[in-house]
Amino acid sequence: MVVSLRLPTLASLFFSSPSIRRSPAFSGRRLYFRPPPLTASFCAQSAASSPPETEDRVNNLKSRVNQDRVITPRSQDFNAWYLDVIANAELADYGPVRGTMVIRPYGYAIWEAIQDYLNVKFKETGHSNMYFPQFIPYSFIEKEASHVEGFSPELALVTIGGGKELEEKLVVRPTSETIVNHMFTQWIHSYRDLPLMVNQWANVTRWEMRTKPFVRTLEFLWQEGHTAHATLEEAEKEALLMIDVYTKFAYAQAAIPVIAGRKSKVETFAGAVRTYTIEAMMGDQKALQAGTSHNLGQNFSRAFGTQFTDENGQRQHVWQTSWAISTRFVGGIIMTHGDDAGLMLPPKIAPIQVVIVPIWKKENEKAGVLNAASSVKEVLQSTGIKVKLDDSDQRTPGWKFNFWEMKGVPLRIEIGPRDVSSGSVVISRRDVPGKQGKVFGISMDPSILEAYVKDKLDEIQSSLLSRATSFRDSNIVDVSSYDELKAAISLGKWARGPWSASDADELKVKEETGATIRCFPFEQPQGTKTCLMTGKPAEEVAIFAKSY
Amino acid sequence: MVVSLRLPTLASLFFSSPSIRRSPAFSGRRLYFRPPPLTASFCAQSAASSPPETEDRVNNLKSRVNQDRVITPRSQDFNAWYLDVIANAELADYGPVRGTMVIRPYGYAIWEAIQDYLNVKFKETGHSNMYFPQFIPYSFIEKEASHVEGFSPELALVTIGGGKELEEKLVVRPTSETIVNHMFTQWIHSYRDLPLMVNQWANVTRWEMRTKPFVRTLEFLWQEGHTAHATLEEAEKEALLMIDVYTKFAYAQAAIPVIAGRKSKVETFAGAVRTYTIEAMMGDQKALQAGTSHNLGQNFSRAFGTQFTDENGQRQHVWQTSWAISTRFVGGIIMTHGDDAGLMLPPKIAPIQVVIVPIWKKENEKAGVLNAASSVKEVLQSTGIKVKLDDSDQRTPGWKFNFWEMKGVPLRIEIGPRDVSSGSVVISRRDVPGKQGKVFGISMDPSILEAYVKDKLDEIQSSLLSRATSFRDSNIVDVSSYDELKAAISLGKWARGPWSASDADELKVKEETGATIRCFPFEQPQGTKTCLMTGKPAEEVAIFAKSY
Repeated sequence: MVVSLRLPTLASLFFSSPSIRRSPAFSGRRLYFRPPPLTASFCAQSAASSPPETEDRVNNLKSRVNQDRVITPRSQDFNAWYLDVIANAELADYGPVRGTMVIRPYGYAIWEAIQDYLNVKFKETGHSNMYFPQFIPYSFIEKEASHVEGFSPELALVTIGGGKELEEKLVVRPTSETIVNHMFTQWIHSYRDLPLMVNQWANVTRWEMRTKPFVRTLEFLWQEGHTAHATLEEAEKEALLMIDVYTKFAYAQAAIPVIAGRKSKVETFAGAVRTYTIEAMMGDQKALQAGTSHNLGQNFSRAFGTQFTDENGQRQHVWQTSWAISTRFVGGIIMTHGDDAGLMLPPKIAPIQVVIVPIWKKENEKAGVLNAASSVKEVLQSTGIKVKLDDSDQRTPGWKFNFWEMKGVPLRIEIGPRDVSSGSVVISRRDVPGKQGKVFGISMDPSILEAYVKDKLDEIQSSLLSRATSFRDSNIVDVSSYDELKAAISLGKWARGPWSASDADELKVKEETGATIRCFPFEQPQGTKTCLMTGKPAEEVAIFAKSY
Repeated sequence: MVVSLRLPTLASLFFSSPSIRRSPAFSGRRLYFRPPPLTASFCAQSAASSPPETEDRVNNLKSRVNQDRVITPRSQDFNAWYLDVIANAELADYGPVRGTMVIRPYGYAIWEAIQDYLNVKFKETGHSNMYFPQFIPYSFIEKEASHVEGFSPELALVTIGGGKELEEKLVVRPTSETIVNHMFTQWIHSYRDLPLMVNQWANVTRWEMRTKPFVRTLEFLWQEGHTAHATLEEAEKEALLMIDVYTKFAYAQAAIPVIAGRKSKVETFAGAVRTYTIEAMMGDQKALQAGTSHNLGQNFSRAFGTQFTDENGQRQHVWQTSWAISTRFVGGIIMTHGDDAGLMLPPKIAPIQVVIVPIWKKENEKAGVLNAASSVKEVLQSTGIKVKLDDSDQRTPGWKFNFWEMKGVPLRIEIGPRDVSSGSVVISRRDVPGKQGKVFGISMDPSILEAYVKDKLDEIQSSLLSRATSFRDSNIVDVSSYDELKAAISLGKWARGPWSASDADELKVKEETGATIRCFPFEQPQGTKTCLMTGKPAEEVAIFAKSY
C-alpha cells in the first residue's frame, strides 16, 4: 500500500523570525537551532514493498515537520544535519518508492553546474554524447562473469510490457557496459573506426538496501563514458585522462581536495581490470568515492565479441574504458563544505552566487532601497554573476540572512537607507561568520563593485578548497603497523600506510575495523616501504578509511 | 533468445566512390542510388519477446547491409528512404530490445540543439529544471480515471527488485503527472507557493506495438513541463504560452511551419481538459504531432488532493498544465527537409553547418591546400560557426561531396590548388542542387568569407522554411462537404473545413478515411461556417489528415 506522505519541506517549517536590527554587533551573532527529537534514516521513508516497521519510523519523520527548529547542529549528529540541510535548503525530497529521490530545483541546479563543466571537458577530450536504451536483455548481464556477480543482486527487472508477460526479463540499466558492447560490435569493423569515444547523461537503477539522498539512491543520474581502443596502452591512457578530468573538476569547481589513485583488486569495478578513483573526505571524516574511471581491458569485448581488423588484417578484441560521475557528487559537496548553519557552496557551482537583501524600516525608505538593490542586481547580473534579489515583504532581513546562509549562498549584499545615501553596500561572506566576514562601505560604482564581488568570489572559492585541504590533511595518519591503523580508524581518521598484503588480509581489515582500502594514491612518498600488515617489502602506500 | 544482430551502419556499407573531378559540369550531376531489395520496418528488428516470424525479417534487414546501394529515393518509398537516411547518416540504430533505439552522436547532436534552445526559453519563462523518479507506484496511475484508461495498455512494469518480487508493481514512467502531483501536495500549501513551474529532461517508456525510429519508440527522451496555478485563467495562459514557445522553436530553429491549434475532445490527452498541439506536415504529406501543451484543469489535483489555501483562507485545488517535446521532433526534421540525396538540416540545428573538402591531385599540392583549408576552418570556427574539415586521405572528394550531402550539412566549402593561388574558395549549398547552388571565387579574406557564410546560412534557413511552407500550403485543401474531405484525404492531402459534428462523427471519419482531426487551428478564416458533416452552423474549421 502506498501512503501519501507529507515530508518535511522548507515551506512547511516554522522559522523563528526575530526582528533583527542590522548592526555590526548582530552580525557577529549566530542563531543556534534546537535539535530535532529524532532522526529517521532515508530508507525509513518508504512506500512500495516496505517492511512493516516502516510505518512507525515514517510517523517519526512526519513528527519532525512541525517542530520549531531548523537544522540539527552538524557536530551533534552528522547524519541528521545532512538530512535537515537537504530538506531545508530544498535540495531534494523523498520519492514515493523506497529509496528514490526527487531532485528539487535548487539541488538540480548544482547538478546542472556539474554537467555544464564536464560536458565541455568531455567534448574537448574528443567524446560525443549519445543515448543507449535503458532496457537491457537479462542475458546480456550474464555474459561477463564478474559483472553479473557484482550487479545481479541489485537489479530492477521489467517482466510485464503492454499488459503481457515478457519472454525475456529486461534489466533496467544499472550501468551500460553490456548494451554498449552489443552496439559497438555493430559499429566497429576496422582500426579506422577506433578510438570510439562516447558518453551519455542518463538515469541508472540499482536496488540498494541502505539508501541516503544523493549518496546512494535506488535511481540516480550520472554520466557514463564508454570508449574502445586498438591497444591496451591507449585504453590505459584514456582511463587515466578521465580520472584526471574528474580530479581537476573536484579541485577547481567543487573545491573538494580529492585523493586520486588506483583501487585495490578487491574494490575494483565488476568487470574492470583496473579502477581509478577520486576519494573525498566528508565533514565526518568518512570517505566518499566521488568518481571512477575503469580500464576494462578486453573483458567485455571478449564476452561480446567486439573485434576489429588491425592494420595487418588480423582480428583483435578492442580495449575499453568506462568512467562515471553521478548525483552522488552533490552529496559530496554538501558534506565537504556545510556547517552548523547549513549548506556552504563553492561559488563556481552555486546556483546563486550573490543574494541581495534590501533593508528598510519606514515605508518612505522602501522605494529608494529597492531601486538601489535592483540596479546593483543588474550591474552584477550583466557581468555573468548569478544574483538573487530577495525583495519579499513577508520576511524580516534577519530571517533572510539566516535563510540564505542556510542555502549556502557565498556572498550577501545588504543595502539599507544609509547605504543608499552614501552610495555603498555591505558585503558578508558565507564562509567567514560574523564581523570578520563583513565589510562595510563598498562603493556601488559598477566597476568597483563588480571587481570587488568577483574578487571575493574567487577568494571564497580558494578559501573553501584550502580549508577542506587542511581538514583532510589533519585527518590522515601515517601508520606503519596494523595496530596503528586500527587506532587511527577508531579515531575516525584515514590511515595511510605501506601495503602489499593479500586480498584476505584486506578483507580482514574491513571485518575488524570497518575500513577499506580507498585507493593506492597516485602521489606516493619516496623511500623504501614495509607492509604494515606483513612486514614484507611494499611498493606503495594505501589509504584505509570508513566510507559511504 | 536474444540474437546479436549486425544492422546496417554507414561504415559497413560499400559506397560507390567514383573518382570525380570537380568542375562546374560535374557539380550539376547527382548520383542516383540503386534501390534496396527490400524494406524492413523498425519493429521487425527485434530480440526479447519478438514474434517467431521476426527472424526472417531480421535476416532480410541484415541482407541489405552488403548491397551496393545507399539511399532508397524518397519518391519511391518514403518509409524505406527514412530508414535508410537514419542508418546511413548514423542518426540512430536499433537497440537489442524490440522498439528501442540507440541515438547515435550525429542524431543526438540534433537533440542537443533542440535542448539548448528550449532550455533557455523555459528558464526565461520562469521554469526551473528538476528531476522526478521514474518508478511510479502502480496505484498512482489508477487515480485519474481517463489517465489510467489512456496509459494502462502501454505500461512497462517492474515486478522484481533486488532479487525479490515487489509487493506493489512499479510503473516505468510513461509521463509524470501522477508522481508530480504526489510531490506537489507536499510542496504547495498556500497561494504564496504558486505558481509552481518546473520542467524535467528525462526518458519515458511506452510499450508501443508499431514503432519507428524517433517517431515512436518504446523508450524516448523528452522534456516535460509541469505547472500549478491558483486559477484556471493562469493555467490556460501558461498552456497557450508554452505551445507558443514550441511554435516559435519549430519556425525559427527547425524551419518547420507547424500549424498550432487545439485538439478535438477525442484527441485530447488522457487526463487533460484541453490539449494544444503543433502539427507538422511531413514530406509524404502525413501529419506529425510535434509537441503538445495541456491544460489539465483540476483533474489531477482532485485525484491527488493537491490543494492550497487561497488569500481568503479557503482550501482550493490547484489548476495545472503539462507540456512536452520529444526526440520525435528529430524525426520531424528528417521527414520535413530531406530529399533523395539524404538528410537536409536547417543551419540553426545542424551539428555541422559547414564542411570543408580540400581537393588535390598531386602530392606537392597537398600541403598548400590543407594549410588553406585549416585556416579557413579556424576563421569560421572562431566566429561560432560549426565547421568540419574532412581531410581524410581515404576517400575521394566526390565521395566526400556525396557523403556530407547525405548527412545534410547546409554548406560545403571546396578548396583546390587553383583556389589557393587565387585566395578564394568554392561554396555549395545543400538545398540548391547543382550549378545554381554553387558559387566560385569567394574570397578567403576572413571578414568577407565570414560574412558570406553567415549570410548564406541565414538564407538557407529561410529558404528551408519557405519551401516547407509552400509544400504545406499546396497540400491543404479547403473542403465543405464530407465527400470533398474524403477526396482530399484519398489524395494524401490535409482537408480543412468547418466542423461542429459529434465525437461519433469524428470517429466515423477516422474509420472511413484513416484521417483524424489534427487540430482546430488558432488561425481561423473569417465569415460564417457550416459544418461539412452536418450542415449545421460551425464556429471553427478543423484540419483532418492521416498522421504518424
